[in-house]
Amino acid sequence: MPVGTAGAIKGLTPDDARHAGAQIILANTYHLYLRPGHELIRKLGGLHRFMNWSGPILTDSGGFQVYSLSKLRTISEEGVTFQSHIDGSTHFLSPEKAMEVQEALGSDIAMTLDECAPAEADHDYILKSVKLTEQWARRCRVSKRDEGRSLFGIVQGGTYPDLREMSARGLVEMGFDGYAVGGLSVGEDRAIREQVIGVTRDFLPNEKPVYLMGVGTPEDIVESVNLGVDMFDCVLPTRNARNGMLFTKQGRLVIKNSQYADDSSPIEEDCTCYTCSHYSRAYLRHLFLTKELLAYRLNTIHNLHYYAKLMAGIRTAIREDRLADFSRDFYAQKIHDDEKEGVESLQTT
Amino acid sequence: MPVGTAGAIKGLTPDDARHAGAQIILANTYHLYLRPGHELIRKLGGLHRFMNWSGPILTDSGGFQVYSLSKLRTISEEGVTFQSHIDGSTHFLSPEKAMEVQEALGSDIAMTLDECAPAEADHDYILKSVKLTEQWARRCRVSKRDEGRSLFGIVQGGTYPDLREMSARGLVEMGFDGYAVGGLSVGEDRAIREQVIGVTRDFLPNEKPVYLMGVGTPEDIVESVNLGVDMFDCVLPTRNARNGMLFTKQGRLVIKNSQYADDSSPIEEDCTCYTCSHYSRAYLRHLFLTKELLAYRLNTIHNLHYYAKLMAGIRTAIREDRLADFSRDFYAQKIHDDEKEGVESLQTT
Repeated sequence: MPVGTAGAIKGLTPDDARHAGAQIILANTYHLYLRPGHELIRKLGGLHRFMNWSGPILTDSGGFQVYSLSKLRTISEEGVTFQSHIDGSTHFLSPEKAMEVQEALGSDIAMTLDECAPAEADHDYILKSVKLTEQWARRCRVSKRDEGRSLFGIVQGGTYPDLREMSARGLVEMGFDGYAVGGLSVGEDRAIREQVIGVTRDFLPNEKPVYLMGVGTPEDIVESVNLGVDMFDCVLPTRNARNGMLFTKQGRLVIKNSQYADDSSPIEEDCTCYTCSHYSRAYLRHLFLTKELLAYRLNTIHNLHYYAKLMAGIRTAIREDRLADFSRDFYAQKIHDDEKEGVESLQTT
Repeated sequence: MPVGTAGAIKGLTPDDARHAGAQIILANTYHLYLRPGHELIRKLGGLHRFMNWSGPILTDSGGFQVYSLSKLRTISEEGVTFQSHIDGSTHFLSPEKAMEVQEALGSDIAMTLDECAPAEADHDYILKSVKLTEQWARRCRVSKRDEGRSLFGIVQGGTYPDLREMSARGLVEMGFDGYAVGGLSVGEDRAIREQVIGVTRDFLPNEKPVYLMGVGTPEDIVESVNLGVDMFDCVLPTRNARNGMLFTKQGRLVIKNSQYADDSSPIEEDCTCYTCSHYSRAYLRHLFLTKELLAYRLNTIHNLHYYAKLMAGIRTAIREDRLADFSRDFYAQKIHDDEKEGVESLQTT
């Protein structure tokens, strides 16, 4: 199973993303449903045509942003009623609606609607939440119309191994084209996250892709691939780029730091991305400090290229059966400490 | 003499600008002197290399921003003392300094330092100002070191024909590679501007380029070319693009207007720019309303392409001796009224 990236591409054209090595992109159903509206996008030929991206598109169900962005929300067995974070208008998202919107957008991979339980929820709450998520997954499965597109189920269950098992078994019984591990990357310890991934992975079929939602740093990705994860999505490469934090094999680099003021070298010495092929650290620092729009774009191109190269390296290592060597080299290359000054560490969408 | 454009390219790479048809770019000496500093740019190989633009670069003298942006400024015969608009630090700009900075940047066309007299100044003030500007031009001429680069003198004189004549004659006697008409596009009536251009043009040699600074709209350009102007620079195509105002042969279009919500056509039907080749008005409206960075870039590419195409059309018409026909067609193509809602009309840098 190839490992894919699915990233937001703020500031880039799809051509930029493609040139940086992206193969698939993720689009947020919540945002597109509210603005410009899924019916408008359907009318204009679907999201691929609307945004001029010919590769695959994965859409989330909209649920995550309902929980994280909307001002008020009420969950019932039927679905979620929520208020738009833009204008306060009231909307209702059900499993059927989530499918309808994603089908209007015309995504290649749709996600089932799940409940994202609060991080601090107890076993009783999570048990009920897992049951609701399973019901909703079934309703998504039933209401799916277009057989040419894929639908992934989302495993929930918090940090409880028994509930993760229950959730995974329930979804696998229904049968999906792929399985996502949801409810992580919400502030939990790394050890706990890896434990949850491991226990969940055990109950998922090897022949289907496993997608870890909202993860993560390069280190998180390498560790998760070792645990059997195939796909990721994360705002980290793009959002951190806009904050001036650049990924390199040697470690993270904060471009505004004064040491780069007269540095004529590229971000990363042997990087072949558009940014590294044409611009010095000194120039990128200047653009960033003067808040030029070009700064966000050039930084994003580099970070996206870094992630795409990381994933390509992982795929090759898997094919050549040397993932352990790859992981060791990955850590050995980090010759200096990561620069962290002034960079928000934000991993949620 | 070819008619050139010299535009700011916020949000674009030089490649974008080149693809949109730009042949020469303008860089602001004031901004680069303050950040990142001309010595840094010199050390890193000059501005062409720093920003990755291999075509010609025109630099202004820095004077215009000293008058328009800096908080405090004191003019003496020696030069201008001013405070940085960024940190309030005190700086001194003399004709010699203006040349030194422009030579450090490595521009292909440098401008002499002039005094931009207040729009409301009387004949006495402007007379003194023209004399000072002439002295400063002579000192720029004398202190110029690199014979491989061009230096343009700037004609001042407000709206007084006798002072414009005096200023033009003085500069022509010294001999420059080109002549700019300064002190216009500061809110004067169009009739007055055209009168000033006409009277100034009469005293400038036909074999040297005439550059009208800070102008203008497509209509201003067509009229000014008819009066004998060869070169222009203006923030209008790029700044208006960022404000969502797009130029087309048929007239100006404000992309946020609701009539474009489901409009699947490109900005301009037969436009070959990257934006019109890939995106609908509906998509561009969506990007603009959601404040996506990509909106500014795609809009800017279109407007720059529009201006480059306008200038190319003018050059062809001049070569084929049918400028009058071109001008008539230019106005005849405007089939609808310009949309103006919510767009600032800003023509100064």
